Amino acid sequence: MADTRDLAQVFGEPVAGNGLLHRRFFLQGAALAGAVATATAARAETISAISPPTMLKPGAAFNAYGMPSHWRENIKRVLITNAPPGREVTGSSRTPLQMLEGMITPAGLHYVRNHNGTPDIDPDKHELTIFGMVKQPLVFSVDSLMRYPMTSAIHFMECAGNSGAGNAPQPPQATAADIHGLLSCSEWTGVKLSTLLDEAGLDPKATWILAEGADAAGMSRSCPVWKAMDDAMIALYQNGEPIRPEQGFPMRLLLPGFEGNTNVKWVRKIKVTDTPTFTRDETSRYTELMPDGKARQFMLQMEPKSVILKPSFGMNMQGPGYYEISGLAWSGLGRVRRVDVSADGGKTWAEAALSGPVLPKATTRFRLPWMWNGQPVTLMSRTTDEKGVTQKTHAEWAAQYAPRQNFHFSAIQSWAIDASGKVSNVYV
Amino acid sequence: MADTRDLAQVFGEPVAGNGLLHRRFFLQGAALAGAVATATAARAETISAISPPTMLKPGAAFNAYGMPSHWRENIKRVLITNAPPGREVTGSSRTPLQMLEGMITPAGLHYVRNHNGTPDIDPDKHELTIFGMVKQPLVFSVDSLMRYPMTSAIHFMECAGNSGAGNAPQPPQATAADIHGLLSCSEWTGVKLSTLLDEAGLDPKATWILAEGADAAGMSRSCPVWKAMDDAMIALYQNGEPIRPEQGFPMRLLLPGFEGNTNVKWVRKIKVTDTPTFTRDETSRYTELMPDGKARQFMLQMEPKSVILKPSFGMNMQGPGYYEISGLAWSGLGRVRRVDVSADGGKTWAEAALSGPVLPKATTRFRLPWMWNGQPVTLMSRTTDEKGVTQKTHAEWAAQYAPRQNFHFSAIQSWAIDASGKVSNVYV
Repeated sequence: MADTRDLAQVFGEPVAGNGLLHRRFFLQGAALAGAVATATAARAETISAISPPTMLKPGAAFNAYGMPSHWRENIKRVLITNAPPGREVTGSSRTPLQMLEGMITPAGLHYVRNHNGTPDIDPDKHELTIFGMVKQPLVFSVDSLMRYPMTSAIHFMECAGNSGAGNAPQPPQATAADIHGLLSCSEWTGVKLSTLLDEAGLDPKATWILAEGADAAGMSRSCPVWKAMDDAMIALYQNGEPIRPEQGFPMRLLLPGFEGNTNVKWVRKIKVTDTPTFTRDETSRYTELMPDGKARQFMLQMEPKSVILKPSFGMNMQGPGYYEISGLAWSGLGRVRRVDVSADGGKTWAEAALSGPVLPKATTRFRLPWMWNGQPVTLMSRTTDEKGVTQKTHAEWAAQYAPRQNFHFSAIQSWAIDASGKVSNVYV
Repeated sequence: MADTRDLAQVFGEPVAGNGLLHRRFFLQGAALAGAVATATAARAETISAISPPTMLKPGAAFNAYGMPSHWRENIKRVLITNAPPGREVTGSSRTPLQMLEGMITPAGLHYVRNHNGTPDIDPDKHELTIFGMVKQPLVFSVDSLMRYPMTSAIHFMECAGNSGAGNAPQPPQATAADIHGLLSCSEWTGVKLSTLLDEAGLDPKATWILAEGADAAGMSRSCPVWKAMDDAMIALYQNGEPIRPEQGFPMRLLLPGFEGNTNVKWVRKIKVTDTPTFTRDETSRYTELMPDGKARQFMLQMEPKSVILKPSFGMNMQGPGYYEISGLAWSGLGRVRRVDVSADGGKTWAEAALSGPVLPKATTRFRLPWMWNGQPVTLMSRTTDEKGVTQKTHAEWAAQYAPRQNFHFSAIQSWAIDASGKVSNVYV
């Protein structure tokens, strides 16, 4: 359906180059989508009077635990591993971001980064020991932790290696999931770590903790005491139900906004110390190689970031007309304050609408209406968080590090769309 | 571990009868839980140095879609159907509320109320027709709706028959799931219905719509136009992924805060009218029998409500000491403003802490610290919403209706705990 109304009559003038519209129009303009079929009243009555086959026989019975529709089996985690044969338990599987909506990630699609597989832990035998520089070492079973006061919060989780392909020599022609899918967001519930450390009684000289998991990698990371005493928790639930095996069943350390592997899964011990422990998992990896050849350690907080998911690589535009640009923004430093979108490679920007609730250290869905005129364009999104920190361009980001350094990649993602409607990944 | 500190030294005085503590202490008092094992430093070092069996061999490989731990298979939907043999597709399965935490319900445990089973709809053949008192009838495919501007929001869903057992002659000795489990909460994403109705062009005389599902019951309900033009949406996603079959795949009508079955699943037509249609599903059921023998229709908004889940029926107290009282509160009228808790059958009340985010027409988790002295007590919770509406007592609620009327039951739930720690359901 072609719409013959004048664009400016409906939307007012575009607010930025190549057809970006003001965010207040994001609930209008539907008629311009060109995708809806009109019908005569008689035809609509006829259509509505014909019962589809599903109305002609009873449907399926109840089940104890529901699953997604078999019509959507293509929506699954993306397995990426370059492990040698026999070592396929090491690697990652990624959240199919461009196939999802909203801010919550269903637990079944939460990304997984494992260093030696997912352990099968008997919760009745699991213990969490808190020791080291404390007045009174403590040992908790799952049941004893369940007696404690709990707290709930929605937070993202992101691997420090997420988006690292974005600093490859050539822009990877790959989906948003492939590049950015080591990112998920859940509601977590558990016991504040400060409650447990208060009970153990911190030595005034304590400045760090070491957390270790009960997996076959013995994944362990150091975390400053200020964070452990701030919003850290021992998470027991994810999206309402007990935390799943791939996310740390029966418990994980949750450090909101910190790089993923510091949120130690299957956590079994927390040792209070006065120095980082410099474990394998924080020295051999998860560091930044600087221009002077030295490695920077303990860049723990994930910086503000965003990615446009609709449209993104792998999708094809359906011809000129109305589109909603939509994506996710997040920051490990706090709330997303604003997201700006450009359709002309960064020359002009329009502020996107944020879907509430906008929560600290949680993904935030942004949306902006857009009238594509069918000409080549370059789409970009840029987050500014409540600390006033703004995402850098690709060149600005790369200039901070040695060539090919790819941890904590947080530069602006750009998607180019050609006249045929094909989306590709470009560096701007 | 007995704690010999004086209660008042740690918490200050209780703020209400039978040991209810001020909500600001809900992150303290852990030492009083009596559930944690202390250890000597040497013993803690020893425990932490022994690798559990899961550290000695690689764990499981990656999978495409994760599932809960097999150790928690007992957490499942509770099937309740009194349908005759061969009709087991009619009835309900309930959310195991007392086994969950936080505010989000995982989609696999969302309650289901089906009138003739779950249809298996081919999304490429499904159509939504909007017709009746509109200028231009419209027909949407799933793909065409996906082109429209979207909106996301976290909202509860509750069946009008939820908690109806609460008005049985004797208080049912049953779990919170059995009684109140026709309640769940999700993040929903879809297209605002007002966008579609604006495009169709409402006749100024239109006052109602009729929505019908593509299931074998042809479930259909009337909804006032003011609601359709307010926060109603055609939901396509639930908790980030495409809506699941039991919740309406590929699309459902979402009417935040309205009784469950008005949120028509598998929605295939919306007819705009100037009167309610008085369908079977809004006349034979989902009405209130009043004292004068007449039935009240179209009580659509779910009233403020709450239930204490920990402790609740089926749990046993672990002896005197510290507990966290926790539960869910919600209102179809807007945000929960406050939740009060009583441990003495309603004589005195203490305000509970609310876990953020507190969102309109969403479940809100409340928590309150409590020192149980081991004597018999009666626990109650009472929600007041942002409209100033407060939950009624059992007697006040029942007095509004004919005896045994049990739709829209929203009275205060009371749990009695005896000296042995057994929890039972009582009417207060």
